Amino acid sequence: MKTPWKTDKWFTSPWNFLDEARKDQKFASKIKLHDVSLRDGEQQAGLIFNKDQKIALAEKLAEVGVHRIEAGMPVVSKQDEEAIREIVKRDLGPEIFAFARCMKEDVKRAADTGVKGVIVEIPSSEHIIQHAYKWPLEKAIELSIEATQYAKEMGLYTVFFPIDMSRADMGWVLDLVERVATEGHMDALAVVDTFGGLNPHAIPYLIKKTKERINKPIEVHFHDDYGLGSANTLLALAAGADVAHTTISSIGERAGNASYEDIAMALLTMYDIDLGLKYDKIYETAKYLRDISGLQVRQNRGIVGDNVNDIESGIVSAWYYNVKDDAPLELAPYLPSLTGHPETRVVVGKFSGLPTVEIYLQELGLTVDNEGQKSEILAKIKDMAFDKGRLLTTEEFVQIVKEVTGK
Amino acid sequence: MKTPWKTDKWFTSPWNFLDEARKDQKFASKIKLHDVSLRDGEQQAGLIFNKDQKIALAEKLAEVGVHRIEAGMPVVSKQDEEAIREIVKRDLGPEIFAFARCMKEDVKRAADTGVKGVIVEIPSSEHIIQHAYKWPLEKAIELSIEATQYAKEMGLYTVFFPIDMSRADMGWVLDLVERVATEGHMDALAVVDTFGGLNPHAIPYLIKKTKERINKPIEVHFHDDYGLGSANTLLALAAGADVAHTTISSIGERAGNASYEDIAMALLTMYDIDLGLKYDKIYETAKYLRDISGLQVRQNRGIVGDNVNDIESGIVSAWYYNVKDDAPLELAPYLPSLTGHPETRVVVGKFSGLPTVEIYLQELGLTVDNEGQKSEILAKIKDMAFDKGRLLTTEEFVQIVKEVTGK
Repeated sequence: MKTPWKTDKWFTSPWNFLDEARKDQKFASKIKLHDVSLRDGEQQAGLIFNKDQKIALAEKLAEVGVHRIEAGMPVVSKQDEEAIREIVKRDLGPEIFAFARCMKEDVKRAADTGVKGVIVEIPSSEHIIQHAYKWPLEKAIELSIEATQYAKEMGLYTVFFPIDMSRADMGWVLDLVERVATEGHMDALAVVDTFGGLNPHAIPYLIKKTKERINKPIEVHFHDDYGLGSANTLLALAAGADVAHTTISSIGERAGNASYEDIAMALLTMYDIDLGLKYDKIYETAKYLRDISGLQVRQNRGIVGDNVNDIESGIVSAWYYNVKDDAPLELAPYLPSLTGHPETRVVVGKFSGLPTVEIYLQELGLTVDNEGQKSEILAKIKDMAFDKGRLLTTEEFVQIVKEVTGK
Repeated sequence: MKTPWKTDKWFTSPWNFLDEARKDQKFASKIKLHDVSLRDGEQQAGLIFNKDQKIALAEKLAEVGVHRIEAGMPVVSKQDEEAIREIVKRDLGPEIFAFARCMKEDVKRAADTGVKGVIVEIPSSEHIIQHAYKWPLEKAIELSIEATQYAKEMGLYTVFFPIDMSRADMGWVLDLVERVATEGHMDALAVVDTFGGLNPHAIPYLIKKTKERINKPIEVHFHDDYGLGSANTLLALAAGADVAHTTISSIGERAGNASYEDIAMALLTMYDIDLGLKYDKIYETAKYLRDISGLQVRQNRGIVGDNVNDIESGIVSAWYYNVKDDAPLELAPYLPSLTGHPETRVVVGKFSGLPTVEIYLQELGLTVDNEGQKSEILAKIKDMAFDKGRLLTTEEFVQIVKEVTGK
């Protein structure tokens, strides 16, 4: 019997594979990750990568195996333009794209860097064109047609990127897209949720409807304002979207983008879909980004957090003690090594229980005389953890053992 | 026409309210948030709250208006036990619960604190009972029956909490739950995804199936290993779950729990469901937790991040300039004031454009002689941002203006 929820590397839920869970899933046969860390990612207020850092990040992303890299927007700075050129030149594996506003000049600057494709942003809700652009609608349409037509002439794979699409009337915006696609040029359409305002229930119908109207590959570009970016992207892929726009660790404009880590790991361990990544480079890549940028993530953020595999609770330490050698997947959805994460460790703190004391005594080769002493050690651990307001170090544990045993 | 996606406080997607998006939604008429920040939340390795901090957090949660607080586990420490007693005594509004392992002693300690209800954890997958507990199955069942029976005798509202339920065979675990419910006692069942391994597609069927078999209120307790905790919880509520177990900012054991901020804000602005919270206390409460605990979150984490409303990109600054006075919702899914977050501000960095320069000159009452000078200022901003590897301060902006204009 095939058990895609349980392998030697992961153990998620068998319920993910019940017919009722799978009945509406229509994944594309080939799904691509389009990483936007170097463009939308860096637009996160306060994030800055210099040229060398951009190149290094592109190398890391290529090592992980993402399929496309949106390397930046040439008009932002000379360094950005040079970084894109250099990333193209190094021929790292992934297809390299650039980003352009709907103007010929932007598209030209993109083409000049040698990229394979361009994302052309097109304002697409009546109200954002009116209020934020203060343009007549016709101007938005004309510029979009001209810019995408020009992209075609330049030989670029052209992805339409209709800004604020999810807040436009669905019929209206699909008409607009169709018109620009007909009079201009489009190789693929990105469904863009600029302000993260789509809920999970809207996604399947939206993708279905868009595919019915637009006979081109569908890309999805979702933001994380409600912490739903990754989930919405998974739902869109399951509804047949071809390309997911993602970033490392959800960096991105305003509340960030969908995280490729969440999506790739979920597809692998919960949908039996392998995107062909080097999964064991995931943690290292996230860590590198944090090191060069000062980005913070929740210390226990799923997949990428430094402490996600730490165990403090006494209950869970007892489990760990029992399973660590022969059934480690009883304690986690996947092995830390799958993502290149440091191994599980038991830490010492106020939630510790007797199993924690047992584990540390064993590891340190220390002995105590009786159960009473173990309880005394535990009580002192909890007192010290409260006193210091933090976890204890191994040295502090040893000190407590000495105090209690007098050895 | 009713437009629940667009009010004077928020503007999400109209597509959330299409019939096709809503057709399978079966929300309970009364949904409760059961906050577990003080128990599962604090179990996050390295987080520690002392008694006073726990009481202060309970007060904040009560102020926000969560419906229930799981105040802790009395056996963890004397301080925890005292904190629970004090929280009960203050009668803050929310129902107060405690957590217990499936043993009479734990339940007794919970009852002694005066709480209204107890969450009784019951190991519920064959494999975790075998490997992690190293118990015979019958022992797990007997202890569970005894502990929940005792909880009933103590007059406690008793919620079954079947650990690792989502990795058990569905039929097997529902049989187990039914047996313990019949021979023991159960007021509500928590569907527990201990290791975050449920995908969004499995949730609706799982809730439906569970409700068919178990004629009690359904609570959901989902973890965030794949960044899906909040989305899965929303999907479960839409499928008819009655109570959501959540934490402040997704703190929690291993990869954390579902975030009440995501869920409450999504329900309000994307599902037209008001949980009756004081939404404008959300940011302050998250900030307080970070201040006392050293918790980090992504600086632009949706809803709770400090920088989520900052704008650096020139494109977006141009929009901001146009909409700030009369259409601020063109730039965000909801107003910062809705969650008590500091207002939107434009910051100065490498992504800045001419609109940024314009906005700062206006705000500071500075003038420059011509457009050429503005471009020169912008170039110097970008150079300095690269040089410093960070955003610029207002003082640095003024300095650049002086250099360029000679004034």
